Amino acid sequence: MNVGILGCGTIGGGVLDLIDKLPKESNVKVVKVFDLPSKKEMLGERFCDSIDEICQSPNVDVVVEAMGGDKFPYECIVKALKNKKSVVTSNKETVSLHIEEFYALAKENGVKFMCEASVGGGIPLICSLIDAIKVNKVDRIFGIINGTTNFVLTKMAVEGLSMEDALAEARRLGFAEFDATADIEGLDLTRKICILSSIAYGGYVPYSEIYHYGISKVTKEILADVKNLGYTLKFVAESRRTGDKTCKVSVEPVLVKSDNPLSAVNYEFNSVYLNCSTNDLLGFYGKGAGRYPTATAMVADVNRIKEDAGKYYYENNGNFEVENFLATESYYVYKDGKSEIVKGIESADKYDFVARIF
Amino acid sequence: MNVGILGCGTIGGGVLDLIDKLPKESNVKVVKVFDLPSKKEMLGERFCDSIDEICQSPNVDVVVEAMGGDKFPYECIVKALKNKKSVVTSNKETVSLHIEEFYALAKENGVKFMCEASVGGGIPLICSLIDAIKVNKVDRIFGIINGTTNFVLTKMAVEGLSMEDALAEARRLGFAEFDATADIEGLDLTRKICILSSIAYGGYVPYSEIYHYGISKVTKEILADVKNLGYTLKFVAESRRTGDKTCKVSVEPVLVKSDNPLSAVNYEFNSVYLNCSTNDLLGFYGKGAGRYPTATAMVADVNRIKEDAGKYYYENNGNFEVENFLATESYYVYKDGKSEIVKGIESADKYDFVARIF
Repeated sequence: MNVGILGCGTIGGGVLDLIDKLPKESNVKVVKVFDLPSKKEMLGERFCDSIDEICQSPNVDVVVEAMGGDKFPYECIVKALKNKKSVVTSNKETVSLHIEEFYALAKENGVKFMCEASVGGGIPLICSLIDAIKVNKVDRIFGIINGTTNFVLTKMAVEGLSMEDALAEARRLGFAEFDATADIEGLDLTRKICILSSIAYGGYVPYSEIYHYGISKVTKEILADVKNLGYTLKFVAESRRTGDKTCKVSVEPVLVKSDNPLSAVNYEFNSVYLNCSTNDLLGFYGKGAGRYPTATAMVADVNRIKEDAGKYYYENNGNFEVENFLATESYYVYKDGKSEIVKGIESADKYDFVARIF
Repeated sequence: MNVGILGCGTIGGGVLDLIDKLPKESNVKVVKVFDLPSKKEMLGERFCDSIDEICQSPNVDVVVEAMGGDKFPYECIVKALKNKKSVVTSNKETVSLHIEEFYALAKENGVKFMCEASVGGGIPLICSLIDAIKVNKVDRIFGIINGTTNFVLTKMAVEGLSMEDALAEARRLGFAEFDATADIEGLDLTRKICILSSIAYGGYVPYSEIYHYGISKVTKEILADVKNLGYTLKFVAESRRTGDKTCKVSVEPVLVKSDNPLSAVNYEFNSVYLNCSTNDLLGFYGKGAGRYPTATAMVADVNRIKEDAGKYYYENNGNFEVENFLATESYYVYKDGKSEIVKGIESADKYDFVARIF
């Protein structure tokens, strides 16, 4: 089976490396890699500078998209699917916006669309979710799905660093981009919970309608106060199905007690839980980011395509209406150095910081 | 796809119930159920009292074995595979003894042998392990894989019950058999870590050679002493590959610090971790026992057979040599009301109780 890779950066380069190291009997090989001309020398004969040499090539069976961003990757994925190539992507941005179209095009063209690596990095999460919904109803998903912010919050809470220093350390270790806004403000988590919810419910949970409140206002003082109250602060995404076409979804800081398994998920690790109708509570834990964990998830997707496993047809029951938890749940509210816990808030605006009691 | 069920007790009855509730489009149905004559009325036309009506019937595609025990289930599984029926089983006893033969017979006859529910109940553990070894090397497996003993230890440590009372409560809730010896002495965990290790290493890790030390000697005094030292006591199975054909495996009580994720796994829940070469540490959490979680895992296996997913060929690299950790690791040793931590012990015999420092 011949693979073409779009983008040979951290993740795409990891995929190339892992596939090159597979035993010959696996019959999987990378035949073309698209990237900027600066990579030409490194990639040798496999280099190409036109996506058509991959997305339209009769010699490519599977396209691995590892570029990031929306517009261009979207065009590449659509072109590949229309040319009857299965697609593997780690791109949560474009998947969260076009998940319905990607699954529909894959079905129409008799190929597979796989996005395991778009949520939870190396954790076999989406394949487990898809497996689960074939025999269960999944009505609630929650967890820590952003390694950067979990690393920052752990560094602040456990080692007493400021957010600035924690972020600098995360950048040094490769856990954060130079511009970490998408992580800190929760956009990355919003994309991921959009993808998980849409797959779980078989209907689109619009990315743009998901409530998100970031962690930029978290200070050492707030963390000390939270600890004093017997809680740990975590940045969590949660989705609950509330009806046939309705759900509650949020990305926000939450306070957990020490007996909650999320409280022990530290540094760059992710952890996600699914509430299943017959299988009860299922949990998954692993590295949510990083070259080899993410690349491993993509190679596992390539392998599923090879074995014709991982069959999934998105039900497309139409858009879900999305509410948040603000009005109905208890919140820790912090203003002018004082905090209290209140039942339901109108908005976070009039406080210095708020976090849901989990 | 037509399913025959062998044994309609707690688990088999759960499988029957779940498959009967699948939507018609799933095309999966139970056509025959083998059990004692006392179930005849309840099962109606689907009842049969000869396994040949299932294992040799041209009308059955998949045999679900949910009887427990070794000899008779072994004969049924062999007969089914030889008659080119795929087999789904939750039976850790017979799988731990004949895993090589079952996988070999399945391959020989062009069908599938699936045992997801034999370890970790409803947790999608074996499918994730098999997925992992296709693209990773898995060199270490550890976790809490027995719900009964974890429930008992949690009840004792958190609620202060005696072992006798905790066991009575576990029986009342359906988490323990009347004779809980196989759980308390670690035989159940030994079977499960044998299955996981053999699959992970592609070679048989002989059940009979795995060191196991039970929790029957745990007292309230020991738990108080352990807590005092800053630890939580857990009953854990661990397997580490140490060479091409060697490994260290044990089933024994261990002491974990509060920052170890196993410390927060309580009551009937299970949690298993895999150390993977490229995917780092992966963790799984869920209900390790109970009617519907276990039945869900079996129905998921039936579904994988239907979709022709979950392909796995046991490598059969021959038997592994098995050592334990006694000589090389640190142990908490307790005798005559006093404890100390020592590096390496010859055997547990000369103490009232021992637990490995994890």
